[in-house]
Amino acid sequence: MITAHARATFSPEGPFTLTTIERRDLQPHDVLIEIKYAGICHSDIHTARGEWGPVKYPLVPGHEIAGIVTQVGSEVTKYAIGDRVGVGCMVDSCRECDNCHKGEEQYCLNGMTGTYGAMDRYGQYTQGGYSTHIVVTEDFVVRIPDGMELDAAAPLLCAGITTYSPLRHWGAAPGKKVAVVGLGGLGHMAVKLAHAMGSEVTVLSQSLKKKEDGLRLGADHYYATSDPETFRNLAGSFDLIVNTVSAKIDISAYLSLLALDGTMVNVGAPAEPLSVNVFSLIGHRRSFAGSMIGGIRETQEMLDFCAEHHIAPEIEVISAKQIDEAWERVLASDVRYRFVIDNSTMKNE
Amino acid sequence: MITAHARATFSPEGPFTLTTIERRDLQPHDVLIEIKYAGICHSDIHTARGEWGPVKYPLVPGHEIAGIVTQVGSEVTKYAIGDRVGVGCMVDSCRECDNCHKGEEQYCLNGMTGTYGAMDRYGQYTQGGYSTHIVVTEDFVVRIPDGMELDAAAPLLCAGITTYSPLRHWGAAPGKKVAVVGLGGLGHMAVKLAHAMGSEVTVLSQSLKKKEDGLRLGADHYYATSDPETFRNLAGSFDLIVNTVSAKIDISAYLSLLALDGTMVNVGAPAEPLSVNVFSLIGHRRSFAGSMIGGIRETQEMLDFCAEHHIAPEIEVISAKQIDEAWERVLASDVRYRFVIDNSTMKNE
Repeated sequence: MITAHARATFSPEGPFTLTTIERRDLQPHDVLIEIKYAGICHSDIHTARGEWGPVKYPLVPGHEIAGIVTQVGSEVTKYAIGDRVGVGCMVDSCRECDNCHKGEEQYCLNGMTGTYGAMDRYGQYTQGGYSTHIVVTEDFVVRIPDGMELDAAAPLLCAGITTYSPLRHWGAAPGKKVAVVGLGGLGHMAVKLAHAMGSEVTVLSQSLKKKEDGLRLGADHYYATSDPETFRNLAGSFDLIVNTVSAKIDISAYLSLLALDGTMVNVGAPAEPLSVNVFSLIGHRRSFAGSMIGGIRETQEMLDFCAEHHIAPEIEVISAKQIDEAWERVLASDVRYRFVIDNSTMKNE
Repeated sequence: MITAHARATFSPEGPFTLTTIERRDLQPHDVLIEIKYAGICHSDIHTARGEWGPVKYPLVPGHEIAGIVTQVGSEVTKYAIGDRVGVGCMVDSCRECDNCHKGEEQYCLNGMTGTYGAMDRYGQYTQGGYSTHIVVTEDFVVRIPDGMELDAAAPLLCAGITTYSPLRHWGAAPGKKVAVVGLGGLGHMAVKLAHAMGSEVTVLSQSLKKKEDGLRLGADHYYATSDPETFRNLAGSFDLIVNTVSAKIDISAYLSLLALDGTMVNVGAPAEPLSVNVFSLIGHRRSFAGSMIGGIRETQEMLDFCAEHHIAPEIEVISAKQIDEAWERVLASDVRYRFVIDNSTMKNE
């Protein structure tokens, strides 16, 4: 076993405590990664607090991982010591089902293995990126392109791919009108990516507080959803709406903003069901859909796309002892736009 | 004005009474149709009873119309006296908006003109097919193919196109697994059409009461949704689910039956909103969509497809004085599978 230092929560309320965890000994296809940076995702909080189901404690969250390969298993072919690599929301899948064969491992029919809080094929409970080291099979590791900073790369592994994948799947491109609901960690990436793909981008945010930011990030338009005029003026406008808000919102009102054959895709999920007025779907052959991260091949494609288009998330780097404070600020939407832990501070008091 | 005999309802409760209505004098592009048969659609009942919004009485329902051209306007080029023609759910649209230009007049951005209960461009309140004659602009008339009986053609104008259009749009074809929820007027057409398109067809019905019928109509499988085993066994199975049931059903349970990238499309709409568990969408990038009839070009394509594949609805022909009784039987799901009024009986006591 390999011992790593980590920050874990021992109950739904926290706080985070410095502890050690065991990583498995390297299997032939495993790589050992020294984690340099780990992003803080809202779903870390949902999961750790038991909002998405029961949790086994202690829990080490973190699925936006960027680091350096420091050791490789005997049969590893894709990576070498010193390589700059990333790990996202999953560390394994069955690799035998139809969806895995299609490269959509995130939809593995036997259940993909989450980077933390899941049972892996070795019978070990997975622990995430708020730690100094992680062992992952090479097939679930991606390469961070040259010239991309490791701290900025980290959030791409969840926030980046979660928005990139639906934008690609539903055809964000020149001539397409894309709306992004919510300008947080996911939303700000969606704006940058949709803009880089050539679509006309509108931000729909509760207020105009972040309007300047939104336009700077690449949005063409920015509207407040607290203003009823917004829904009247934009009715039937969009080909695609990416909803990054996981709170309960009035879905039928947003559906009315879609043009013929438009799709509204949720990338976050509220715990309670949402109410949908079927007439708003039927009237213009609209769809209400969901999307979850992306496959490994597509995650690599997203990283390469970001490198090519000089896209990076806007981040605030924190030390490990600031995690509790950062979580509170995430819940208060007080971050522009992603916290990233500097994992070299993991053991600091 | 042209006087037609009709059966009208004068209140939400009915009953139907023989009356006369006025049809406009023929405009240059109008055709006068002697209606031979008119189908009875569940939405006639929803509309007439005020369940979908306020209604002006008297109301003559009926949007599944088959008849013979008996007079043509001075500039009509598409039809001649004696032609066998049909009229469906709409008799006009703006013809200028993007959706009309795409041939999707049913989604006209300025609102298509319904065959009954709508205000037309002449300021006249439209009245439907439970009558002896109707005047319609030639662009909203379709040709009934040779060899297709007029009585069987009538239900194709709504039940046929309502199911044909989403099956085509979402790609029902060989290799695709299609489920049809509900085996009524729409459902039995969906089964025949999906089968003719080469897909593997499953009927999901409350009970197994109509199983024999379902298999005879072209279904490969037939399951009862009252049996919880059905939902367990079929989880993740279908590429497309066409929901023909307009009552409130457990959408999230049905969504769980979709495979990766599958779509459940509602062609009926309950008055109340439906509750959707977003996790069931996100988990396999599923979509919940709606579809409404089809464009005029596609309606003609559907008729030609039915003629080519010898597809006809299963009908029970009634006389005009049986309309009230037929409506009660529709509400009791006691019809296999569509009532069609023999309009030659319109004036009978």
